[in-house]
Amino acid sequence: MIKSFHPPLRTLMGPGPSDVHPRVLSAMARPTIGHLDPAFIGMMDEIKHLLQYALRTENPLTLPVSAPGSAGMEACFVNLVEPGDKIIVCQNGVFGGRMKENVERFGGVALMVEDAWGTAVSVDKVRHIMQQHDDIKALAFVHAETSTGVCSDARALCRLARDYGCLSIVDAVTSLGGIELDVDQWGIDALYSGTQKCLSAPPGISPVTFSERALIKISQRQTRVPSWFLDKNLVMGYWGGGAKRAYHHTAPVNALYGLHEALVMLQDEGLEQAWQRHALHHRALRDGLEAMGLQMAVAADVRLPQLNSVTIPEGIDDPRLRNALLERYGLEIGAGLGVLAGKVWRIGLMGSSCTQRHVMLCLDALENTLLELDGDIHGGRAAAAARAVYAETEH
Amino acid sequence: MIKSFHPPLRTLMGPGPSDVHPRVLSAMARPTIGHLDPAFIGMMDEIKHLLQYALRTENPLTLPVSAPGSAGMEACFVNLVEPGDKIIVCQNGVFGGRMKENVERFGGVALMVEDAWGTAVSVDKVRHIMQQHDDIKALAFVHAETSTGVCSDARALCRLARDYGCLSIVDAVTSLGGIELDVDQWGIDALYSGTQKCLSAPPGISPVTFSERALIKISQRQTRVPSWFLDKNLVMGYWGGGAKRAYHHTAPVNALYGLHEALVMLQDEGLEQAWQRHALHHRALRDGLEAMGLQMAVAADVRLPQLNSVTIPEGIDDPRLRNALLERYGLEIGAGLGVLAGKVWRIGLMGSSCTQRHVMLCLDALENTLLELDGDIHGGRAAAAARAVYAETEH
Repeated sequence: MIKSFHPPLRTLMGPGPSDVHPRVLSAMARPTIGHLDPAFIGMMDEIKHLLQYALRTENPLTLPVSAPGSAGMEACFVNLVEPGDKIIVCQNGVFGGRMKENVERFGGVALMVEDAWGTAVSVDKVRHIMQQHDDIKALAFVHAETSTGVCSDARALCRLARDYGCLSIVDAVTSLGGIELDVDQWGIDALYSGTQKCLSAPPGISPVTFSERALIKISQRQTRVPSWFLDKNLVMGYWGGGAKRAYHHTAPVNALYGLHEALVMLQDEGLEQAWQRHALHHRALRDGLEAMGLQMAVAADVRLPQLNSVTIPEGIDDPRLRNALLERYGLEIGAGLGVLAGKVWRIGLMGSSCTQRHVMLCLDALENTLLELDGDIHGGRAAAAARAVYAETEH
Repeated sequence: MIKSFHPPLRTLMGPGPSDVHPRVLSAMARPTIGHLDPAFIGMMDEIKHLLQYALRTENPLTLPVSAPGSAGMEACFVNLVEPGDKIIVCQNGVFGGRMKENVERFGGVALMVEDAWGTAVSVDKVRHIMQQHDDIKALAFVHAETSTGVCSDARALCRLARDYGCLSIVDAVTSLGGIELDVDQWGIDALYSGTQKCLSAPPGISPVTFSERALIKISQRQTRVPSWFLDKNLVMGYWGGGAKRAYHHTAPVNALYGLHEALVMLQDEGLEQAWQRHALHHRALRDGLEAMGLQMAVAADVRLPQLNSVTIPEGIDDPRLRNALLERYGLEIGAGLGVLAGKVWRIGLMGSSCTQRHVMLCLDALENTLLELDGDIHGGRAAAAARAVYAETEH
């Protein structure tokens, strides 16, 4: 006989999920009501407004897809790509590769712009390929690459897309709530995100938004969207609001309670304040890590504050270290992915996992464990270096 | 400024979601842990075993899709249908129509077998169309039609599929946990279900299972699955277990806590006991409704115990009655859909909403409200009729 499951206590500082605040966990446990209940419909409208605030957009088609970020990605591509469409796909990590998969599965042609893992998307390379083709339908790229910890210049890339008359499709899974993101001002046409990164709601929901230009493209499709679940025209009937609301699918009621609460917390803190908080704790973590003698794997000008790739020192057994952190400190940090596997750790400072408490715990646990494993680091300096950042900010 | 959302207290006796047990709600609020945490992976294995128990199958490919039932439907069709494939689709309500949409969006040809809403799928009609074609790839039908409250003969239909050498695709969204369902003995090849009906977990997850024959068909595809999120070959890397487990998408951690707890409760009660419970409370509700003078809309031999379609008496204002139930009693019952809109109510007795307390509350609220609206019913008889069923069972 299988028993009830009680998770171990963890502190989540990997690439997501991040620690979920007790307020959000409590919201998830509120009694389930019907997905067509007037009270629930009112809450859906609030979620839409809160997402518009968090994304800085007035797009009417802004809603949470009832599935994880990879379904949000699929929602963008399945609606916007038709057979034969040429799509520029930028790849500088895992998720650009997944975009390519999406384009090809829906019959599109992916023109790849590749940059080394750990570097940003090259705006010049993208411009170059746009100059060579006059029939590009869309430019797709990842704003904050979760697999490497790199931020690309979304503003410049979206402007380029506008200049060359094509749509922009942006992966903002890890950027939303952690760094500047401005859908309307940057002219983003389609965007998907996730709940389990800087919003710190449980995983399973993907906020998306589509611009007027994107909706025109969808309305002019020559072929039917090869998905019923993700067809924007049908989803809009449910999320569009007002008397026209039609049953599409049964919304994940309790997961949306959690997202609503997480978005209310973001609204209460203030969006820019949340970005500043991520920047502050990143500086403290970075100074602590560097004081220990560790090196950041990503150049400073393209480094994400919410996801810190740290070069693993020579001689350290990666799985053994992460396992020790998990077992002794209940601390989860992320492993490297793809070509960076075994070469970096990914330390997340996302949403509710972005506090002074998290920074100090991580530095202490990492330092102790590295010393135990005979790592060649400087002991006894990290905490002071981080504290100095906080002291500076207070004055 | 938007405030925290606190749902009103409801009793859910519509077509789903059903009332979620406090044990399941509490499980949803347990701290989120990483989707690659060893403890979480262990829980995933338990969910798989519990689903195999609930579905009566040994299929290794049995797992919860990280999205609602309509995505589970899509997972079956997108993997099993290739362009040009002829699929028999039985329609006797809303969800057969959605199956047709799925087949066509993936390039298949839907051969429709239509039966009146409120009646079962005709096995003879299906046999007839199978005799006319020798290249049918699959037979798709709904076991328990949520839009009408009708049960079709899944055992006979699946046998027919085997006899004619095609696959069976079964919608078991509303049947799982409420009535007999036996995947392996009936020879079901692909099945999707939902969590928010007779399992009484919150909506948002869709259990699916695929037989060996279905896996062979998938492995012999000539074309790529037009979905990355739902591609079974990729999902299997994550849910397949063992050392091969590969990152696919971030699982909806807390929603799976809830599903795990709901499945543990089903296991503790016993599957057959759960079926008997649904049958018992259905009899009590039916006798109460009939004593009031109301009529069941579906013939007794194909009636679902967990979803009771009741003919709305003449002269009763449907929305006004349902609104009164919701506002005065916090009681949600379902409206009719499609051709049955305004003609029937759909009263659910699903999972945790299938108790004596629910039956008695519903009869009382319905009787009082109908009398207030000058409905032509017999007052004062319903409760005694229901109680008689319970008294009989106790002896």
